[in-house]
Amino acid sequence: MATVSLIQYDEASAEVRAVFDDIKRVRKVDDVNNFWKALANHPATLKRTWESACEVMQPGALDALTKELIYIAVSVTNGCDYCTHSHTAAAVAKGMTPSQHGELLAVIGMANETNALVNGLKVPVDEQFLK
Amino acid sequence: MATVSLIQYDEASAEVRAVFDDIKRVRKVDDVNNFWKALANHPATLKRTWESACEVMQPGALDALTKELIYIAVSVTNGCDYCTHSHTAAAVAKGMTPSQHGELLAVIGMANETNALVNGLKVPVDEQFLK
Amino acid sequence: MATVSLIQYDEASAEVRAVFDDIKRVRKVDDVNNFWKALANHPATLKRTWESACEVMQPGALDALTKELIYIAVSVTNGCDYCTHSHTAAAVAKGMTPSQHGELLAVIGMANETNALVNGLKVPVDEQFLK
Amino acid sequence: MATVSLIQYDEASAEVRAVFDDIKRVRKVDDVNNFWKALANHPATLKRTWESACEVMQPGALDALTKELIYIAVSVTNGCDYCTHSHTAAAVAKGMTPSQHGELLAVIGMANETNALVNGLKVPVDEQFLK
Amino acid sequence: MATVSLIQYDEASAEVRAVFDDIKRVRKVDDVNNFWKALANHPATLKRTWESACEVMQPGALDALTKELIYIAVSVTNGCDYCTHSHTAAAVAKGMTPSQHGELLAVIGMANETNALVNGLKVPVDEQFLK
Amino acid sequence: MATVSLIQYDEASAEVRAVFDDIKRVRKVDDVNNFWKALANHPATLKRTWESACEVMQPGALDALTKELIYIAVSVTNGCDYCTHSHTAAAVAKGMTPSQHGELLAVIGMANETNALVNGLKVPVDEQFLK
Repeated sequence: MATVSLIQYDEASAEVRAVFDDIKRVRKVDDVNNFWKALANHPATLKRTWESACEVMQPGALDALTKELIYIAVSVTNGCDYCTHSHTAAAVAKGMTPSQHGELLAVIGMANETNALVNGLKVPVDEQFLK
Repeated sequence: MATVSLIQYDEASAEVRAVFDDIKRVRKVDDVNNFWKALANHPATLKRTWESACEVMQPGALDALTKELIYIAVSVTNGCDYCTHSHTAAAVAKGMTPSQHGELLAVIGMANETNALVNGLKVPVDEQFLK
Repeated sequence: MATVSLIQYDEASAEVRAVFDDIKRVRKVDDVNNFWKALANHPATLKRTWESACEVMQPGALDALTKELIYIAVSVTNGCDYCTHSHTAAAVAKGMTPSQHGELLAVIGMANETNALVNGLKVPVDEQFLK
Repeated sequence: MATVSLIQYDEASAEVRAVFDDIKRVRKVDDVNNFWKALANHPATLKRTWESACEVMQPGALDALTKELIYIAVSVTNGCDYCTHSHTAAAVAKGMTPSQHGELLAVIGMANETNALVNGLKVPVDEQFLK
Repeated sequence: MATVSLIQYDEASAEVRAVFDDIKRVRKVDDVNNFWKALANHPATLKRTWESACEVMQPGALDALTKELIYIAVSVTNGCDYCTHSHTAAAVAKGMTPSQHGELLAVIGMANETNALVNGLKVPVDEQFLK
Repeated sequence: MATVSLIQYDEASAEVRAVFDDIKRVRKVDDVNNFWKALANHPATLKRTWESACEVMQPGALDALTKELIYIAVSVTNGCDYCTHSHTAAAVAKGMTPSQHGELLAVIGMANETNALVNGLKVPVDEQFLK
């Protein structure tokens, strides 16, 4: 259960509805995800987050699928269940294959392992990395 | 300063030298990084970690650069300085452009932000993500 | 399900009951929360944690509500579900408004985002912060 | 050392200078902090982050100092050195007293402790928190 | 619900079955845990993880129970539910008493608290720790 | 540099000196570590933390070295430099051998890896762990 109520379209303010409409239009969906319904309790955060997502996640120097893989890497490392589920679903929708998923998780796992090894050994940064 | 001494090639055991030689051969470098010199205090971990890195980081369903981007995403989220420096350098060596670096960090930043928003709102997972 | 059994008042030792009684008296509640029932498996930790909570969370230079907001910020960043729920409830009980909750989460989200940006950029600390 | 170069005003593009000018004007400072100089490598992130900071950190339902305390709580929990230094300095500039700082850290410490206790005990959420 | 399907023995490939058989043999169990069934979606990660677990968790300079306590400390700090449950069960199977469990959690809690205090105070490392 | 000044014995209040004297007596040292000098800015936290450390870290169902290993596991996972250095030094003082240190880090590394794999796979908890 959420710490806030999930705002449904019918009960939303005009300000919230405008963002919901934009999400539905851009993503070609009939209803917005629970994330947006929860954010709608604070319309300024809803609007800013949606606009940031549009800017940050659009294809650019990195393609849309690569951005989802990065998003998953962060979400898994933070242990965020909702984000892992929603961005894994998004990655699949953008073409992530089971093999890519498997390799993604292998890299995430190994990075977390070596991060810990480095932290425990307190390895000094090599000079060539600082040039 | 490290919590262990950094094992140099000249003072290394035959077991450690064999791994160092392999790293130098595969990576075409004259000396191994501090990470490997620190790991060499526990030869079994050195050998296992190097073999895992070879398996996990080789190009497969995901290319080598994408794997470095994922590694950076984890290392940044964990706040691991050494890993961020070394894998950013590795990504640059594999062709990461400044624009790609900029977009990578933007996605990492936003993912950490929305992970926190989701954690604070305790958003219930949408049913369609669980199919 | 917990990794320990939840100790109910009826089955508690005299040592545990004394702490439970104190919690019920101070908080004006009929029963203690699951957190305390779980901690009761190790009476020394139960007693020390309760006494620390009394000392740390009492109004002082910071008022009781501000302390709850700080507690939520930590719990959300750590992704602790129970703590987020219980301290959000505590903050509401101490007067947190929906607007304050919304702004709290916006700050928490943005702080997590810029922490990650800083970690990825490895920004050197400005000299004026070190004076 | 940063993973990017710090962009100085003299070498900045018009787009970056516009943001730098705005930061200097709003914050009444002669030069921007290293954070902004590092972000300037990706002008879109610089602009979006500055605009978000203005929106999120302005006094509203929560006052400016309380928002800095929350920012510190997140930064400390994430172990972000730069952010802890810069936002502690910001909090002092906004009137945080040594006593408030001491109580802030005590709450942050205790929250991290009980988050861990809860995670280890896997305490089930009390029903009254879910109403 | 998992982000992948759980591979059952009957539907597993020969490569996966070989690992499952080895787990069942070594651990003297009739079926493998969900962790292995999920990992089986990427046979290379399944095999490597199982072999690493055998190497890392075998009794050596540290006994098997101490290794489980360390595993729990990491899992609790990361807030990993599955890992906390599975390694708490493993520790109990290896003889962890309720008193040991209580003291383990007390240490984990206090370490998380003082980690945060240190991060907030930015305590400089004492010279004697760097010798 | 710390975010507070380090309180030296000569400038300390009687309340702080009493704790410093106790630390020096119990630990048989001539001066207290920087951690305590930093904490001394908030005497209540200094006193409470020292008393908690005495209670939590004393040998009981777990011996003193095992408790240090657990402390290191948490500190490494959180990436706390000071804590990793100070508790590694403490563990060495209590008899930790290089082999034990090597195995400790191997377990910490692997636990962080499998925590991430579990988070990415969202493995459902096996029923037998919940009995």
